[in-house]
Amino acid sequence: MQVNGQAYRCIWLEDDGRRVGIIDQTKLPHQFVTQSLVTVDDAVLAISDMLVRGAPLIGATAAYGVCLGLVADCSDTRLDEVCAKLIQARPTAVNLRWAVEKMRTVIAPLPLGQRLARAYAEAAMICDEDVQVNESLGTHGMQLIEKCRKDDGQPVNILTHCNAGWLATVDWGTALAPIFKAHEAGIPVHVWVDETRPRNQGAHLTAWELAAAGIDHHLIVDNAGGHLMQHGKVDLCIVGTDRTAANGDVCNKIGTYLKALAAMDNAVPFYVALPSSTIDWTSGNGTEIPIEERAEDEVLLVSGKGMDGVIHQVRIAPDQTRAANPAFDVTPARLITGLITERGTCPASRDGLLSLFPEHR
Amino acid sequence: MQVNGQAYRCIWLEDDGRRVGIIDQTKLPHQFVTQSLVTVDDAVLAISDMLVRGAPLIGATAAYGVCLGLVADCSDTRLDEVCAKLIQARPTAVNLRWAVEKMRTVIAPLPLGQRLARAYAEAAMICDEDVQVNESLGTHGMQLIEKCRKDDGQPVNILTHCNAGWLATVDWGTALAPIFKAHEAGIPVHVWVDETRPRNQGAHLTAWELAAAGIDHHLIVDNAGGHLMQHGKVDLCIVGTDRTAANGDVCNKIGTYLKALAAMDNAVPFYVALPSSTIDWTSGNGTEIPIEERAEDEVLLVSGKGMDGVIHQVRIAPDQTRAANPAFDVTPARLITGLITERGTCPASRDGLLSLFPEHR
Repeated sequence: MQVNGQAYRCIWLEDDGRRVGIIDQTKLPHQFVTQSLVTVDDAVLAISDMLVRGAPLIGATAAYGVCLGLVADCSDTRLDEVCAKLIQARPTAVNLRWAVEKMRTVIAPLPLGQRLARAYAEAAMICDEDVQVNESLGTHGMQLIEKCRKDDGQPVNILTHCNAGWLATVDWGTALAPIFKAHEAGIPVHVWVDETRPRNQGAHLTAWELAAAGIDHHLIVDNAGGHLMQHGKVDLCIVGTDRTAANGDVCNKIGTYLKALAAMDNAVPFYVALPSSTIDWTSGNGTEIPIEERAEDEVLLVSGKGMDGVIHQVRIAPDQTRAANPAFDVTPARLITGLITERGTCPASRDGLLSLFPEHR
Repeated sequence: MQVNGQAYRCIWLEDDGRRVGIIDQTKLPHQFVTQSLVTVDDAVLAISDMLVRGAPLIGATAAYGVCLGLVADCSDTRLDEVCAKLIQARPTAVNLRWAVEKMRTVIAPLPLGQRLARAYAEAAMICDEDVQVNESLGTHGMQLIEKCRKDDGQPVNILTHCNAGWLATVDWGTALAPIFKAHEAGIPVHVWVDETRPRNQGAHLTAWELAAAGIDHHLIVDNAGGHLMQHGKVDLCIVGTDRTAANGDVCNKIGTYLKALAAMDNAVPFYVALPSSTIDWTSGNGTEIPIEERAEDEVLLVSGKGMDGVIHQVRIAPDQTRAANPAFDVTPARLITGLITERGTCPASRDGLLSLFPEHR
């Protein structure tokens, strides 16, 4: 993606062929700052302090973290130590463990002298695969936007929730990939960006991505989407997913379910964009997915740029008020018009998913 | 209501029988500050700067504003001047015009010597009537909470949106009145408080009222209610309304519609509490109600207490991002279990409303 006229991925190998560059996402949207990771501990901190976030990007960062950890010492002992450090950086992140174990499986059987080069090659491959999957998903999703194209040249109005953009992946994103593709193809689009409380990933990241790409958008509070749909101001919804059950139920950022209900009530198509790596083939339906309860300060404190230009946190509730903070909700498959994957779009059902991924029959 | 062990209304006549006390609601929840209104200009500022807000309280403040304006001069010219000043304080507030015109109608026919005393008496009556209506509504609504009372002593879980508490009225509130009554009656209750973006009236005011009353509650983001209902954690919803159409459609704070959809999807009873003064008998259905689009800074800026203990505003979006800010949405009557009024609870329909208010047949 382009930032200030320059092409960026969210993670890249620097010119010395050793160090790894990332965007410090904690500074967005108010500052665009890149950072070099030099050691495995840098990678661990980038993940644990959420300089990088989003399941695919966490995985990619961990893969490069293994490389950084092996630069001076490729021994089995060191490999184990590096993998353990990375896995505990965010213990609940499924892609992190997956990426680290993939690296270990590839590296461990090799003689010491071949390990480092192969590690870097494998990390690059994990990144490239992520980009390819997302771009392919974007091309399929763009066709759904094209279908809503208007004869009078007015933009297609798309509502999205949270950030499933390129900042959550290596490039392209998931829910935003079809929007970037449509914009590139000259289809006029306008995006309603849910701010996505409590962490405001919509306001902080999605709005920033769209602004950087020159895509027309308005920030709205999470309360507003239903009203906009009642008044014909949303042509389709596209959201991402953290985990997709085998029956097509989708676990995504808290509040997704409410938008899906409003879409159904107003006959607005509601799509979920997902790389097939988010499908949990072992989970029969969404109610089996455990929902993470996060820290109450995410609700009680809001972060933003103060009048002095510096980032501040402010408390919005009385001191004695406690908060509850479920991080995700489950949108039942019955409310979902279709699932957009790297192999095409299918109904949100077991049969739908198996039609695209028959190897899981 | 009680604040720090002392009984308060939101507006009161001070001991000198002339000045009028109010709570400066712009300081809540972080500071409880009262203020004396001495002149009509004080009352105008209190309304326009939103030291007082909520339709019934604005009306009551305007009524006392007329009194303050007549203390030194009860002439017709002065009466007209005072009424005009107050009406333009917030031109869109229906109750404000209603209260001022009521005062004028009562005062204008009287000889000069009787006007001031009658003005104070009428303002007091407007306040007392508001309190009676809300308390009566609270008693009727409490019966619905009582019905959900659990044999095991666990609290009845009630979800509310925005602030329809005593701070929006002279006392008791509308949506919160049944909750205060239930708490007083010893029914264990727990309230899920929607923060209610963009202005955060839930976080700022509802949470503060419940904390002051010692009622168990948790603040939640507006995204969370659907998930809580899916998991059986909400026994009923009670919200207020800014305007009720004659067919039972309800226009309330943006986001109310989304909660009503979730309540219907999960068979959770969804009630709207309203003094009959909010019923617009001339409006056939909710789609005829114009929806106010408010300033985008309400979305882009969030206000709260900084680490230094001072109130700050922070910007949550990139500088180039614009926002849309519809202030209300319409919840169709089909999603509403019942309307709680000062005369009892009825179905959300024309027939339901007319059964309680036959004088509007």
